[in-house]
Amino acid sequence: MEKIVSLCKRRGFIFPSSEIYGGINGFWDYGPLGAELKRNLRETWWKAMTRDREDVAGLDATIIMHPAIWKASGHVSTFADQMLDCKTCKGRFRADHIHSIACPQKPSKTVADCHGEKTEPRAFNLMFKSHYGPIESDDNLCYLRPETAQAIFAQFKNVVDSSRQKVPFGICQIGKAFRNEITPRNFTFRSREFEQMELEFFIKPDEAIRIAQGSVEQWSESADLSEPKPNWGWEMWHRYWVAQRTAYYHSIGVPGDVLDYHWQTPEELAHYARACVDILFKFPFGTDELEGIAARGNFDLSQHQKHSGKSLEVFDEELRAAANKLDDAAKESFVAQVADEWAARASKNNHPEEGARSEARAFCEKLFKGIYIPHVIEPSAGLDRLALAILCIAYSEVEKADPKGNVEKVTIMRFHPRVAPIKVAVFPLLKNKPELVAKARSVFEMLKKHLAADYDEGGSIGRRYARQDEAGTPFGVTVDFDTIGENGPEMVDTVTLRYRDDACQERVKISELLQRLLPEIG
Amino acid sequence: MEKIVSLCKRRGFIFPSSEIYGGINGFWDYGPLGAELKRNLRETWWKAMTRDREDVAGLDATIIMHPAIWKASGHVSTFADQMLDCKTCKGRFRADHIHSIACPQKPSKTVADCHGEKTEPRAFNLMFKSHYGPIESDDNLCYLRPETAQAIFAQFKNVVDSSRQKVPFGICQIGKAFRNEITPRNFTFRSREFEQMELEFFIKPDEAIRIAQGSVEQWSESADLSEPKPNWGWEMWHRYWVAQRTAYYHSIGVPGDVLDYHWQTPEELAHYARACVDILFKFPFGTDELEGIAARGNFDLSQHQKHSGKSLEVFDEELRAAANKLDDAAKESFVAQVADEWAARASKNNHPEEGARSEARAFCEKLFKGIYIPHVIEPSAGLDRLALAILCIAYSEVEKADPKGNVEKVTIMRFHPRVAPIKVAVFPLLKNKPELVAKARSVFEMLKKHLAADYDEGGSIGRRYARQDEAGTPFGVTVDFDTIGENGPEMVDTVTLRYRDDACQERVKISELLQRLLPEIG
Repeated sequence: MEKIVSLCKRRGFIFPSSEIYGGINGFWDYGPLGAELKRNLRETWWKAMTRDREDVAGLDATIIMHPAIWKASGHVSTFADQMLDCKTCKGRFRADHIHSIACPQKPSKTVADCHGEKTEPRAFNLMFKSHYGPIESDDNLCYLRPETAQAIFAQFKNVVDSSRQKVPFGICQIGKAFRNEITPRNFTFRSREFEQMELEFFIKPDEAIRIAQGSVEQWSESADLSEPKPNWGWEMWHRYWVAQRTAYYHSIGVPGDVLDYHWQTPEELAHYARACVDILFKFPFGTDELEGIAARGNFDLSQHQKHSGKSLEVFDEELRAAANKLDDAAKESFVAQVADEWAARASKNNHPEEGARSEARAFCEKLFKGIYIPHVIEPSAGLDRLALAILCIAYSEVEKADPKGNVEKVTIMRFHPRVAPIKVAVFPLLKNKPELVAKARSVFEMLKKHLAADYDEGGSIGRRYARQDEAGTPFGVTVDFDTIGENGPEMVDTVTLRYRDDACQERVKISELLQRLLPEIG
Repeated sequence: MEKIVSLCKRRGFIFPSSEIYGGINGFWDYGPLGAELKRNLRETWWKAMTRDREDVAGLDATIIMHPAIWKASGHVSTFADQMLDCKTCKGRFRADHIHSIACPQKPSKTVADCHGEKTEPRAFNLMFKSHYGPIESDDNLCYLRPETAQAIFAQFKNVVDSSRQKVPFGICQIGKAFRNEITPRNFTFRSREFEQMELEFFIKPDEAIRIAQGSVEQWSESADLSEPKPNWGWEMWHRYWVAQRTAYYHSIGVPGDVLDYHWQTPEELAHYARACVDILFKFPFGTDELEGIAARGNFDLSQHQKHSGKSLEVFDEELRAAANKLDDAAKESFVAQVADEWAARASKNNHPEEGARSEARAFCEKLFKGIYIPHVIEPSAGLDRLALAILCIAYSEVEKADPKGNVEKVTIMRFHPRVAPIKVAVFPLLKNKPELVAKARSVFEMLKKHLAADYDEGGSIGRRYARQDEAGTPFGVTVDFDTIGENGPEMVDTVTLRYRDDACQERVKISELLQRLLPEIG
C-alpha cells in the first residue's frame, strides 16, 4: 500500500489535501492524473446508468438541503457513533475502540485500562453541521449531506412530474458527501469528504405485480437476469442490479477474482431492508466494501411522505385496469392473503399483528385503485473507493534491464484503456530532428481530437516509455526515420504502436491508428 | 424570467432544493435535463482547458481544506458583508440595504427609517463554517470553500513536482463552492451553493521576460492574440485569456451581442490586482457577471508561501542562462530600473518607496538565479450562471397553428447542439405498427452508442416534436412507411431528419445519419 500511496503523490494521482499547511486528516485531493481517472470513472458509471439505458434519469442536487430531510431519513437520530471522553487527558474516543487505542498520556496502556476517568458513552453524530442565513441559531442549522441518496427521494415527485419515466425506473446522482469519521484511515478508503455514485431504482410492490401479472417470478440460481420482465418483484430486481453492477466492474477492468460478495444476515439488515449485498474488493489492507446494493422496501419514500406531508404515491393505470377485472371475492381473498403475510412478518419482528393487518388492508384498497408508494433497490457505490481499487489493480512492478544490463524495478499502471487518464502518447524518436518533431506533432494533433493524448519529446525513448507506463497510458506511438521515409518509401507514414502491458510493438499506418485505438477505449 | 423558471421546473431543468419541505432559500437542484445540460457545459469547459491544450493540468480538490488557507487568502478577515441587527424586531440586515428593505414589523417604512433601535454595523463573514473531528472547538473550525481557486494555489507545488508542466502553464478545477449570501436572488444567479470553473494560469514576472527576451511585448488593439509568444508579459496573457474565454462562449452558442465587458477601474481593483475584466451577460433581470478574468500578480502564491512557510518559487533554467550572460553593469542597471519602477508604483499606492526598492533588489537577485514566484491570470467562471445564461438564450416562443387552425404559443429551447441535453430523438410514425417500431428501435440503438438519444413513441408526431422542441433536442428522426418500403423500394432505409430551429425536414439515409449529426455536436 505504501508504494501505491507514494506513486500517487509522485505522479500526481492523489495528494494530501492542504499539504503545505500540514494536511487535514481525512481529506485528499486528486492531482492531474487522478482528476482524469476520476472523471473517466464518473463517465463510465453515468453512461452505464443513463446513456445505455432508457429507464434511469439523472439528478444533480445540492449538498446542503433542508434539515428536515435528515430527520425524515433517520440520520439526525441514528447516524452516530458512541463516544466517550476521558476527563484526565480530554481525549474523545469511540466506545468500541477503547480496548485497542493507546492512552495518549500512557501509551503502554489502552484507553480502557488507563487511570483516566471516563464519561459514559454518548452518541456523536457523524454529520458535519453548519448554519445558513445571517443568524447562527438552531432554526437555521443545516447539514452537509452524508449521502447523495436522500436528494433523490426528496425530488422523486418533481422527476416523475417532469419526465416521462414510469415505475419501474431509476434516478441516479453523482456527488460529494461528508461524514465526520472519528478515525479516517486506509488512504482514501475512509475519508471525511468523498464522492458517491448512487442509483435509486423504483419498482412496484410485489403485491402490485401479483395483481397485474398473476404471480411474481421467483429467483433461482438459474434465473435469467439479462432483461427485466414485467413479473419481476423486488428479489429479481435486486439480483438483476447485483448482476448489472458486477458487469460494470468487469467492463472497466475489475476482474472477478478481486471482488467478493457479502450478503447481509437478518441481524445485520436495517429493519426496513429486505436484503442487502455488499460488493467487496480485496484491498491490500483487507477486503472491504466498494458498493452496497440494498432492497429498501418503501421505507424512504414513506418517511418523506410522512414528514413532508406531500404525497409520494404514484398512479399505475395498468394496475388499476388489472384490479378492475377482479371480482369482489377475488379482491377479498387477495386482501386476506396479503394481511396474513404482513401479520406473519410483523410477528417475526415482534410487532403487533393486528396493526400490520389493518395496514395491509389500507394498502390493498389503494392498490386496487392503482395507487402505491414505490419500493426501491439502491446500488450505492463509492467513487473514491473505486478509484483506489482501480489504482490497486493497476499497480504492478516488473524488472527491466537497461541497455547496460543493469536490472531495475519499474512500475507499470495497468489501467483498462477505458479508465486510463491518458489513452495514447506520441513520441518523436529524437527531438532535435525537425522532420520527426513536425510529423509527431501532426500525429498528436490528429489523435487528440478524438482521445486524451500526450506528446512527449523529453529524454531517451526508453525513459519516455517508462514515464507513460507509470502514468498507465495503454498505447504509445513513435515517429521514427522510417515514418519520414529516410529508410525507403515502403514504411512512409507508418509508426510504431507500442502496447503498455507487454511492451510489444507493431508497425501501423498513421491513417489506421484511430480505428485501432478507438474500439479499445469506447 | 418567470416563464423560464416555470419551464425549468415543468421540464426538469431546475427544481427548488428540498421543495417538498418548503424549499431552502438559495439552493437549487438540477433535474434530468438540467443535470445533462450542466454535464455538457462542464465537459466543453474541461475540454477547452485540458484536452485541447497542453499547458493546463486538472485538479479535483476537497471542499473542506485546512482553515489556514482562508487566513492566507484573506477570506477570514475580509470576505464579509457589513450587517446590523434591529434590537426591536431581532432582524439582521445588510448595512448597505437598509434604505431599500421594508421593516418586517412596519412594512410601510424601510429598516433605516423605522423606530427599531439598531446596532452598529458589524462584519458578517460569508463563509459557511463547520467543525471536523470529534470535538467542536475553535481548534477544528473549518470552512466550506467560498471559491475553488485557493486549492489550486495550495497544490501548486505538488502539481509542479508531479507533472512536466513548466511556467507558463495553468491548473484548472471545476467544483462546488459556498457563500452564505444574505439575500440569494435572481433564480440560480446568486445562490448559496454553486459550482465554479476556475483556471489559474501561472506566468513569469514581466521582469523575467525582459531578462530572457530583451523586452516585453506591448498590447495594442491590433495585437495578435492567437498564439502565445515567449515575450508576452501579464498584459498580453490577460488579453489572451479574455479572447480565449470569449471564443469559448461563442463555441457553445453564446453570441457576442448578449455579452458585455466591464474593465474594472483602479478604484474597483483589489490592491494586488493589475487588471480585471468581468465578462457580463445580458440576463432578463439585468446585465451581470458571468466570469471574471483577473491579473492577480503573485499575491496568492506569495501569501501561501508566507503563511505555510513552504517555498512556492520555481526555478527557470532559461532565465538563469539569460541572466548569466549579463555582465555586472547590465545587472546593476537592470536592478536600478526595476527598483525605480517598484518605487514609483509604491508611491502611487501611498506605500513607502524605500521598502519597495529593497524588495525589488532582493527580487532581482533571485531572478538572476532563475528563481521567482509565478504571477497568475485567473479566468473564473460560474457554471450555474452559465447554465442560466444558456437557458435564457435558448428560450423562445413561436406561434403555431394546429391542424384545425388554432394558433397557440409553443416554447422552443434553441440550445447549441454541443450543450443540448438530448442530441437526437427517434420516433416511429405510429406505435401500433410493429415494423415501424422495430425499425425505429434499431435506428435508436445505433445512434445512442454515439450520442445522447431519446426514443419516443407516445402521442401524435406533432406532439412528440413539440415535446423535444421544449427539451431543446436539435434533431429528430422519424421512421415512417417509406422507411420500411411500403411506398416502393426507392425510399427504403431513409428517414425524415427534422431540424428543431426551423422545423425543416429532409430525407436522409439511415447509414448517413451519424456522419450528418456527429460534426454538429463534436
